[in-house]
Amino acid sequence: MSPNAILLISCPDRQGIITDVTRFITENRGNIVYIDQYVDNAAGVFFMRLEWELDGFLIPREKISDYFKTMFGTRYEMTFKLFFSDIKPRMAIFVSKQSHCLYDLLARWKAGEWNVEIPCIVSNHEDLRDVAQQFGIPYYVWAVAPDHSNKAQVEKEEMELLQREKVSFVVLARYMQILSDDLIAAYPHNIINIHHSFLPAFVGAKPYHQAYERGVKIIGATSHYVTAELDAGPIIEQDVVRISHKDTPESLVLKGRDLEKIVLSRAVTKHIERKILTYRNKTVIFG
Amino acid sequence: MSPNAILLISCPDRQGIITDVTRFITENRGNIVYIDQYVDNAAGVFFMRLEWELDGFLIPREKISDYFKTMFGTRYEMTFKLFFSDIKPRMAIFVSKQSHCLYDLLARWKAGEWNVEIPCIVSNHEDLRDVAQQFGIPYYVWAVAPDHSNKAQVEKEEMELLQREKVSFVVLARYMQILSDDLIAAYPHNIINIHHSFLPAFVGAKPYHQAYERGVKIIGATSHYVTAELDAGPIIEQDVVRISHKDTPESLVLKGRDLEKIVLSRAVTKHIERKILTYRNKTVIFG
Amino acid sequence: MSPNAILLISCPDRQGIITDVTRFITENRGNIVYIDQYVDNAAGVFFMRLEWELDGFLIPREKISDYFKTMFGTRYEMTFKLFFSDIKPRMAIFVSKQSHCLYDLLARWKAGEWNVEIPCIVSNHEDLRDVAQQFGIPYYVWAVAPDHSNKAQVEKEEMELLQREKVSFVVLARYMQILSDDLIAAYPHNIINIHHSFLPAFVGAKPYHQAYERGVKIIGATSHYVTAELDAGPIIEQDVVRISHKDTPESLVLKGRDLEKIVLSRAVTKHIERKILTYRNKTVIFG
Amino acid sequence: MSPNAILLISCPDRQGIITDVTRFITENRGNIVYIDQYVDNAAGVFFMRLEWELDGFLIPREKISDYFKTMFGTRYEMTFKLFFSDIKPRMAIFVSKQSHCLYDLLARWKAGEWNVEIPCIVSNHEDLRDVAQQFGIPYYVWAVAPDHSNKAQVEKEEMELLQREKVSFVVLARYMQILSDDLIAAYPHNIINIHHSFLPAFVGAKPYHQAYERGVKIIGATSHYVTAELDAGPIIEQDVVRISHKDTPESLVLKGRDLEKIVLSRAVTKHIERKILTYRNKTVIFG
Repeated sequence: MSPNAILLISCPDRQGIITDVTRFITENRGNIVYIDQYVDNAAGVFFMRLEWELDGFLIPREKISDYFKTMFGTRYEMTFKLFFSDIKPRMAIFVSKQSHCLYDLLARWKAGEWNVEIPCIVSNHEDLRDVAQQFGIPYYVWAVAPDHSNKAQVEKEEMELLQREKVSFVVLARYMQILSDDLIAAYPHNIINIHHSFLPAFVGAKPYHQAYERGVKIIGATSHYVTAELDAGPIIEQDVVRISHKDTPESLVLKGRDLEKIVLSRAVTKHIERKILTYRNKTVIFG
Repeated sequence: MSPNAILLISCPDRQGIITDVTRFITENRGNIVYIDQYVDNAAGVFFMRLEWELDGFLIPREKISDYFKTMFGTRYEMTFKLFFSDIKPRMAIFVSKQSHCLYDLLARWKAGEWNVEIPCIVSNHEDLRDVAQQFGIPYYVWAVAPDHSNKAQVEKEEMELLQREKVSFVVLARYMQILSDDLIAAYPHNIINIHHSFLPAFVGAKPYHQAYERGVKIIGATSHYVTAELDAGPIIEQDVVRISHKDTPESLVLKGRDLEKIVLSRAVTKHIERKILTYRNKTVIFG
Repeated sequence: MSPNAILLISCPDRQGIITDVTRFITENRGNIVYIDQYVDNAAGVFFMRLEWELDGFLIPREKISDYFKTMFGTRYEMTFKLFFSDIKPRMAIFVSKQSHCLYDLLARWKAGEWNVEIPCIVSNHEDLRDVAQQFGIPYYVWAVAPDHSNKAQVEKEEMELLQREKVSFVVLARYMQILSDDLIAAYPHNIINIHHSFLPAFVGAKPYHQAYERGVKIIGATSHYVTAELDAGPIIEQDVVRISHKDTPESLVLKGRDLEKIVLSRAVTKHIERKILTYRNKTVIFG
Repeated sequence: MSPNAILLISCPDRQGIITDVTRFITENRGNIVYIDQYVDNAAGVFFMRLEWELDGFLIPREKISDYFKTMFGTRYEMTFKLFFSDIKPRMAIFVSKQSHCLYDLLARWKAGEWNVEIPCIVSNHEDLRDVAQQFGIPYYVWAVAPDHSNKAQVEKEEMELLQREKVSFVVLARYMQILSDDLIAAYPHNIINIHHSFLPAFVGAKPYHQAYERGVKIIGATSHYVTAELDAGPIIEQDVVRISHKDTPESLVLKGRDLEKIVLSRAVTKHIERKILTYRNKTVIFG
């Protein structure tokens, strides 16, 4: 199967962008297999996702980015990202003690659902080492001291690991530590978290207990890109489940687990498929 | 068809309550047609809803409450409410300018879905007078001055109307005014509001705009009993609908309308059917 | 506000369609305000919806269709429909005895949610005449005899009414009669029905009773275009609600009503907005 | 923690059952920690689930069943099942080639979510042996010949395994074989299947392809007890997910997997918790 080029574009909205860009690809004999675009009329911003076959495309893959920049970058004040379908993103998973999200991620990877590599799993606890071993993935533990005295050192070593393993994005699969600004800055909109509430309700700790106390009739889970502000980054995916007065904090935790793993995996799927664009702390998710 | 007695009970949980209460009814030849109970084990509170046929019941309906209080009230530290199915609750509707919830309520009433009377519709605007007239229901307008200088007087007259019309509960069908503490205190857990967000997210004004700004992927609506604290009363019902980055504040308003009217009407249904108990700022909703 | 032209296209998928069509509009100074397209790769079919402002467009509106046909029709084997946003579609509503869908449709129309005119309501019963009168819409009754002996005559008169009133599409709002093939053929994919089940489950009569008998845990409603085969036309919209063993056929009917009216109105919204294309007995619904 | 007795009752509805049964337990010093009942008024059938602490209960656990039968069995024409919370049910899992449901089941079991033992996994293919090994569970393969010539022999050996391992119920986790009537009869309402459609829509093979062909807007999954008639047993749980015209049969399969595993695991949870009663090919599911 021919590899594809994937192009994600955003720029100020103007007439003729679609025409120009699609003509550029078509005239260079690229067979477009996916095109979708969206205009935020209020913000005046244009977004597009294009995918075309590299086989027969007249421009060599290593020069596409340059050509594109020259032809459209300045003229349209365009920001763009270019990916190739045969270069797999490399995903690191951070976990603490709960296994449900980790199993869900690894089972999908093992079943071949995702075009992704998983070079490492990082944790602050030993608990899930056997899960990593089940799937043959290296497991690294850095325990953060209760007084956080070694946190800077721990994150330094974690970042070295991520660089060494050429990690392209990070998934926090119920990782119960807050990342430092440095680590977040190193992976802008490339760290995906799952928060166990329907954000922006119940930010912070123990959201199921908060939900129980408030007496809500529906609980949710939210996957989002991590930014410097806690639980406030661009939302990728949310889902909910109906509860009742009969639920206890414990039963909410159990019901929530199913939400968490599904919502996180949907977000990871979209990220791996290069179908997410971010702007103004929001996401555009292509279908 | 025989009228039924409906009993809603709450008390500290103890052995034998169900046995004692059902025996009391059965031995007095009441045919129980509905029984449901719930125990909040954490709080140690017992809740029950009972319904039995009055035909053939040995205790006259006007004495049931006294008998019940004597036999169980003190012994079980019981709080209870007694209703009769042939005495219709009287519902006042408060509206401002939007018609969708009002139409939904009135269409159900007219189709005979609800065992309720609607003696009056109250508004701070003239806009929906013709809707009230379509259904032949008196429409009262008290315009609150922008500086709220006449608000006390307005509420006084509204409360006189509610008393005169023997209103048993009030529905705020997108009524865009905040009620005074006096009015709320006069109808404790008998004023139902619809808030156009998934509470506790987006309390206060313009929740759809808040949702748009935050970039959520799901919006909701919440019906709750009104208490002194804004949008913080016991939640009766919630529901949600999926949105996307393509939605504008305007399209959220339109999608939200369908949620609002359905969620409000579900809450009103449960209230009319006497299936709601409240405690600790939460609701127990019987099925 | 400038009126818009709306173009719905389908044709065999080929390179260059988007480029050609958007260039045609842009070069004639049409400001494109909406563009969305979809390719069914399995079927090899291309679909597009375009909307542009007529103000300043160089081709007079009455000639757009001809120009477009000449330029693209043959070359791309294109089927297309052209609409103008200032020409409101005219919707006839058919009802029997139940009012919930009718109220929902009329309340939206009266609130100005829809760019539509409603010249007539048709029924086989007198029951809902007063609803029509509430909203000031002519109400026509043709009672079909139990032996259907006058059915051909009734439909003939109904079709004369639809023609006289220049009706562009028909909504069956719980109309409990089966339409003849002639009437269906006169409005191909322009008659919208609401079926009170999650099709293709429970085709035909009494679907809530069928659902009750089967013991399903979720019920649904389906809006679809009417075709000659009963309940088998292209599906426009579906939704569901969770039920339990506690539900009776009667409570399913009540819960289903909310589904029916919302699902029908969503379908009508999409139809009025010219966002539906049909092919192979399916629908493409633009966002 | 004290073990509990769990009692599931069904019988013709009569006055006094609740009173009699709860008094029997209370007078024998059983502390009731769960009580829920339901009456199907149309069928005239009463259902109850009771749970009480065995510590301090005056009747020895091995005699409870006899006592109960003597006291209530004949008088109320009662059918009942008695379980003890410290006797774990033993669950066999049958699989074919797909791993998603199997991983979901095993990850829950390993995380301690379920009070269950898993003595064996049975398959007609070698594919998932490594998953079984990951979790340390014996994996048995009996390949059924394409002409089914050895099917009787295979099932005989499978049933011997189930008996030897004292299996109390079987979960078909995407097992793509039809069971013989003998095996079904050996585990009446104790074999749980997951069917990848919203039953009764799309019975039989390739339901996602059927859904794609029909153009539905929502797909579902259904867990049910296996009976002699294919896909027609009592439904335990269903759930759905919204799709669109953009979905292909392949994307439906992927979206469906998440439904399948969640819906199956919810059903298994209820079964393990002894919260399901069956009658008239339906289920009563206690909360």
